[in-house]
Amino acid sequence: MQRNIFDSDHDAFRDTVRQFIGKEVVPHIGEWEAAGLVPRELFTKTAEIGINGLQVPEEFGGGGIDSFLFNAIVIEEIGYAAATLGGLQVHLSTVLPYFFEYADADQKSRWFPGFADGTLVSSIAMTEPGTGSDLAGMATSAVRDGGDWILNGAKTFITGGINADLVIVVARTNRDVANRRDGLSLLVVEAGMNGFTRGRNLDKLGLKAQDTAELLFDNVRVPARNLLGEEGAAFSMLARNLPQERLTIAVNAQATATAALNLGSDYVKDRKVFGQRVADFQNTKFVLADCATELEAGQALVDRALVALDDGTLSVADAAKVKLFCTEMQARVIDRCLQLHGGYGYMREYPITRLYADARVTRIFGGTSEVMKSVISRSLGL
Amino acid sequence: MQRNIFDSDHDAFRDTVRQFIGKEVVPHIGEWEAAGLVPRELFTKTAEIGINGLQVPEEFGGGGIDSFLFNAIVIEEIGYAAATLGGLQVHLSTVLPYFFEYADADQKSRWFPGFADGTLVSSIAMTEPGTGSDLAGMATSAVRDGGDWILNGAKTFITGGINADLVIVVARTNRDVANRRDGLSLLVVEAGMNGFTRGRNLDKLGLKAQDTAELLFDNVRVPARNLLGEEGAAFSMLARNLPQERLTIAVNAQATATAALNLGSDYVKDRKVFGQRVADFQNTKFVLADCATELEAGQALVDRALVALDDGTLSVADAAKVKLFCTEMQARVIDRCLQLHGGYGYMREYPITRLYADARVTRIFGGTSEVMKSVISRSLGL
Amino acid sequence: MQRNIFDSDHDAFRDTVRQFIGKEVVPHIGEWEAAGLVPRELFTKTAEIGINGLQVPEEFGGGGIDSFLFNAIVIEEIGYAAATLGGLQVHLSTVLPYFFEYADADQKSRWFPGFADGTLVSSIAMTEPGTGSDLAGMATSAVRDGGDWILNGAKTFITGGINADLVIVVARTNRDVANRRDGLSLLVVEAGMNGFTRGRNLDKLGLKAQDTAELLFDNVRVPARNLLGEEGAAFSMLARNLPQERLTIAVNAQATATAALNLGSDYVKDRKVFGQRVADFQNTKFVLADCATELEAGQALVDRALVALDDGTLSVADAAKVKLFCTEMQARVIDRCLQLHGGYGYMREYPITRLYADARVTRIFGGTSEVMKSVISRSLGL
Amino acid sequence: MQRNIFDSDHDAFRDTVRQFIGKEVVPHIGEWEAAGLVPRELFTKTAEIGINGLQVPEEFGGGGIDSFLFNAIVIEEIGYAAATLGGLQVHLSTVLPYFFEYADADQKSRWFPGFADGTLVSSIAMTEPGTGSDLAGMATSAVRDGGDWILNGAKTFITGGINADLVIVVARTNRDVANRRDGLSLLVVEAGMNGFTRGRNLDKLGLKAQDTAELLFDNVRVPARNLLGEEGAAFSMLARNLPQERLTIAVNAQATATAALNLGSDYVKDRKVFGQRVADFQNTKFVLADCATELEAGQALVDRALVALDDGTLSVADAAKVKLFCTEMQARVIDRCLQLHGGYGYMREYPITRLYADARVTRIFGGTSEVMKSVISRSLGL
Repeated sequence: MQRNIFDSDHDAFRDTVRQFIGKEVVPHIGEWEAAGLVPRELFTKTAEIGINGLQVPEEFGGGGIDSFLFNAIVIEEIGYAAATLGGLQVHLSTVLPYFFEYADADQKSRWFPGFADGTLVSSIAMTEPGTGSDLAGMATSAVRDGGDWILNGAKTFITGGINADLVIVVARTNRDVANRRDGLSLLVVEAGMNGFTRGRNLDKLGLKAQDTAELLFDNVRVPARNLLGEEGAAFSMLARNLPQERLTIAVNAQATATAALNLGSDYVKDRKVFGQRVADFQNTKFVLADCATELEAGQALVDRALVALDDGTLSVADAAKVKLFCTEMQARVIDRCLQLHGGYGYMREYPITRLYADARVTRIFGGTSEVMKSVISRSLGL
Repeated sequence: MQRNIFDSDHDAFRDTVRQFIGKEVVPHIGEWEAAGLVPRELFTKTAEIGINGLQVPEEFGGGGIDSFLFNAIVIEEIGYAAATLGGLQVHLSTVLPYFFEYADADQKSRWFPGFADGTLVSSIAMTEPGTGSDLAGMATSAVRDGGDWILNGAKTFITGGINADLVIVVARTNRDVANRRDGLSLLVVEAGMNGFTRGRNLDKLGLKAQDTAELLFDNVRVPARNLLGEEGAAFSMLARNLPQERLTIAVNAQATATAALNLGSDYVKDRKVFGQRVADFQNTKFVLADCATELEAGQALVDRALVALDDGTLSVADAAKVKLFCTEMQARVIDRCLQLHGGYGYMREYPITRLYADARVTRIFGGTSEVMKSVISRSLGL
Repeated sequence: MQRNIFDSDHDAFRDTVRQFIGKEVVPHIGEWEAAGLVPRELFTKTAEIGINGLQVPEEFGGGGIDSFLFNAIVIEEIGYAAATLGGLQVHLSTVLPYFFEYADADQKSRWFPGFADGTLVSSIAMTEPGTGSDLAGMATSAVRDGGDWILNGAKTFITGGINADLVIVVARTNRDVANRRDGLSLLVVEAGMNGFTRGRNLDKLGLKAQDTAELLFDNVRVPARNLLGEEGAAFSMLARNLPQERLTIAVNAQATATAALNLGSDYVKDRKVFGQRVADFQNTKFVLADCATELEAGQALVDRALVALDDGTLSVADAAKVKLFCTEMQARVIDRCLQLHGGYGYMREYPITRLYADARVTRIFGGTSEVMKSVISRSLGL
Repeated sequence: MQRNIFDSDHDAFRDTVRQFIGKEVVPHIGEWEAAGLVPRELFTKTAEIGINGLQVPEEFGGGGIDSFLFNAIVIEEIGYAAATLGGLQVHLSTVLPYFFEYADADQKSRWFPGFADGTLVSSIAMTEPGTGSDLAGMATSAVRDGGDWILNGAKTFITGGINADLVIVVARTNRDVANRRDGLSLLVVEAGMNGFTRGRNLDKLGLKAQDTAELLFDNVRVPARNLLGEEGAAFSMLARNLPQERLTIAVNAQATATAALNLGSDYVKDRKVFGQRVADFQNTKFVLADCATELEAGQALVDRALVALDDGTLSVADAAKVKLFCTEMQARVIDRCLQLHGGYGYMREYPITRLYADARVTRIFGGTSEVMKSVISRSLGL
């Protein structure tokens, strides 16, 4: 069915993004995957067409747009092309919102121009080896020393961790709390600070062009002006951003599953086996019809959530439902469309294979499907 | 998420319907199921609160509403209450639209007042023993004899067939056609016509309060003025109505699945096993969270389709997707919520058990899930 | 694949049973379902061909067979015919083993001849309104009064409860226990004892020919000689019988799912739609191939378990796996084969419809699928 | 349940293999995966403990064993260790049987000693670019020229293609046939023959230590004595070997899924989230119980098939069922056990991640799941 949440400005922006991806991204995916990350030049190129600065206030060189729909278009177009912007995607969709929401005037002036022109990219460091995304168990800590925080600890699975200029680190700044969810703060560590080192780029199943690193903080001296938001309030700041973060994952899941349907559909129309087009087997038709049906439901759900996000009414439970539905559906759709490719579906040169490898993490990151179900069940009074 | 397709008029009508169902329907379900149909008095009672005549033009005593949303509300409220209006539901949602679309002035004046005041109910007779819903293979036929059609044949699985005053019969009126989909017409048979007999009320797995009959036509003389729409054009008239018919099934599926979630959720909060509320087991929470998630997707899909139907843009393939998704989801959700009831879920006095038995047919009637997939796959160019 | 657990004696017995079912059972299913139970004469007829007394020692008129394989054959043949022996099945498979294992000499002489000749049938009363199958929460109790136990309480969901001559009642005989699983005993209540009344035959979704009742015990005076097994040891006696009870359910599930495959397969070869046999659609072929595959796995699993049961090595966890696998598989297979019947699959006169309604309880009784998973997970050290 | 198909000789062999894998294979998986193949030295090492020559007649230095059970043990132990022997697995399980069945005396004396001592490994080249595993559409052809065949064509997805000394090539040797399945022969191409070149090692999603290559044949002169089996009879020779080939895949699937259950089970017992062991969540318990249940069914099925293979009674349809069940189950089990690992499940250094990537092809190679269903449905008379 016709989507009804976009206007002609959106459509024009989508065209621009689509052309950019076709020209500047798709031809390079292979080399970026081999390198394990995207080149930093990409970030300034995307900035030139306005992707980086969409929500950066105009006074700092950005687009000053107070809507997530343009970001959604970027995520969708990347997904439709089975392409990638590497760590930039996380910078744009997950990390920037913290800066928009919590940066003070000084921080805005220091960092927003760089966000807008693509010279600054950021990442967020939450997960720790051994505790996962359980904030209450976090071991990374910072103690105040004059005008600085002395930060110590280790983080892992940090997307964009190799390329990032700024890293928002979730650290315990107060041990003396009744509830272990209190006493956590967000500290912005800058590239080049003493004691901040990046581990190896982790070897993942997929998302090969997206750098994912362990980060180590050994007595890193972080100036107090780099505290983002209120001291000790990280938990609620993180929680507040969860709906958007999870919707972002859902939008990507929906778009890549749509790409898989298109790839599968194209493949079976071309390919012959046993003297017949694969498309002519009833099983093929039914599989693709099933996929199209699930995608239609996912799209209606995503679109309703995008409107709610802009309205400020997207609850944590609603976003959890959207992420859960879209990522589980994505897994089914991509798996089935890969199967239609036969042996070619197992060759990494085929986009469907990449989609399959990339998709396996969406049911895990941003909160696993199991965490989503816990969140949703609470909203049912269970 | 908040639904956004209804206004305050809809809400007021919904309240009226809900109260009516609570008072006039729910207390009688048991007796109606035992009887195998609803009493005809029900139809005049529903007419009194305006249900029957919603879309009947005002000049004939109806509401003159040019929107399906009010009908959707009726279907939803019945579903939420795990209730039934018996064959009336099919009259309202599936059969009336043919009259609205194709009745000529004479037919309108003869039948519309009765539709509005609940003294006339109708059903449609398509399926035949042995050929199912395959129109091309239809054996019921009518030959012209002066001012009449002489109708012969048998139909089966006719919902509302026992109670109906008017039956739209799909019959072959021309054998001399290249394409066997041509040459079919709609003839309105009236109760009491000579040669028109009703077989037994079929013993179904569920939908016990909904009469389902075989109908026999033995040289029934149907006056030419009872031809509905164009002679020989039944196939395209039937096709044209399919989106609404299937959406109706989807709306019911969505609503009854919602009812199942509520029943399951209530039950597990009350019930204890092994010293613990069933609601406190993580499995229970995850099952209900999964159901709530699928329902959220289904609702977004249904709502988008309802808007499209009113806009006149709901394609056959889109409606097929909505029916397929909602009925398959309904089956999963009801099955899982029944399971949470343990042994009580197997006792017919529990509404969840009735929902389970009733739901099994939604993947079959109005076109099976397999037919839906065929329709959808054609829209994918397969 | 060829099954390899039966010899020629088994095959001969199977032939006898199959002919008996074809002649004495299948023609009566409709009337028995309408009546809500099977006639008591059936039990003496089955006794004549040796079904009832298979494992009753020869001195009491039975077959004296120390193997469950003959019982399995009876269950299978009933299943293959989509037939039923009503409450007799539970008497034979679930209740008799308690008598075989725990009856003392006096009890054997009183009851075993009647078991062998079909004049005595029994049932077991475990579940209570409100506590389900949670033994620890059991409220039915008996207190010693001279040579008798005075029994009070209520039981529900008692299969064969209307027809039973003997009812093994699980009752609390000692409240003064540290572990609430202790202090439970098995008391055999006989038809006609004062204060023992049977409630209505419950209206279930399926298993219509199997009487299922509530039983009430109001100061029933049960003689001490009717205590079965050790006082206070009911919990371990019940646990010890669980593997066989659950395997019985699995054997039935496997056999009825096999019947469904055969029904589905026969139907699609006969039935034409859109000018083609249903069997000729690839979807039909794939669905039935899937079902046949699951059945092949289920059969291998069941057969291995039958051998283990006879060897005395079938653990509680193993039996739980077999029940879980076979009943969940049964649900899928029957649902899919019903779907292939189209509208006819919704008519109770078709055996597939009965199988569907009957099958819904196998995931619930004898311990729900959720209980099975708990049992299995413990065997994994979780 | 206890498996009952092995005796003490099998157990002793299993111990030897297990120790070998632990010492000579597991420590090297990383480097072999990075290299894209296993070193040829591995083949002589495995030969030393008798793996290569199991079924080679004793006169040629082999074990002379007329049973597949020892081979099955090798496959199982590799699977349990989440390890790999690279292309050797295909040589042993899929290719050698052709030589055992069809080699003439001359071929035996030339090749069997090398098979036994590990100096000769082979692969089979069936699939072609563009036609997949559809033999009838095969384009590779050979024409007789004196005492030689002149072979031309290209093959792809050839497992072990880089390392192989001998390649059995399926080629069309006769164009003048009524049925295009006739006229195909097996020619053994030897490393070093003029015109035989190997393409690049294909970049696959998984099975990284297993070389998979395109092979090109440009006027390769193959001596007539290298014709394996009867000229023109390749189709039936290939068909005859399918049951064993597919059972081999099933045995591997069963074993690796078992490994996944063990990995998942170990992981959740170690790992804590939200202050609780992952193992302590009911969802974890239920997921692993489900997996254990499916594995129990798969094992019973595999074992029955292994016995049937040795008995010579394993039909093509039976083997198809076993492959279909085990590979589809493997996919579910590995996916679920990966999910329990959270983010670590996405890191290639974890064996579960490797299992996931490796497993994706088992539903495709050796005949896709869809091909299996076609085969099975034919055995149902559909």
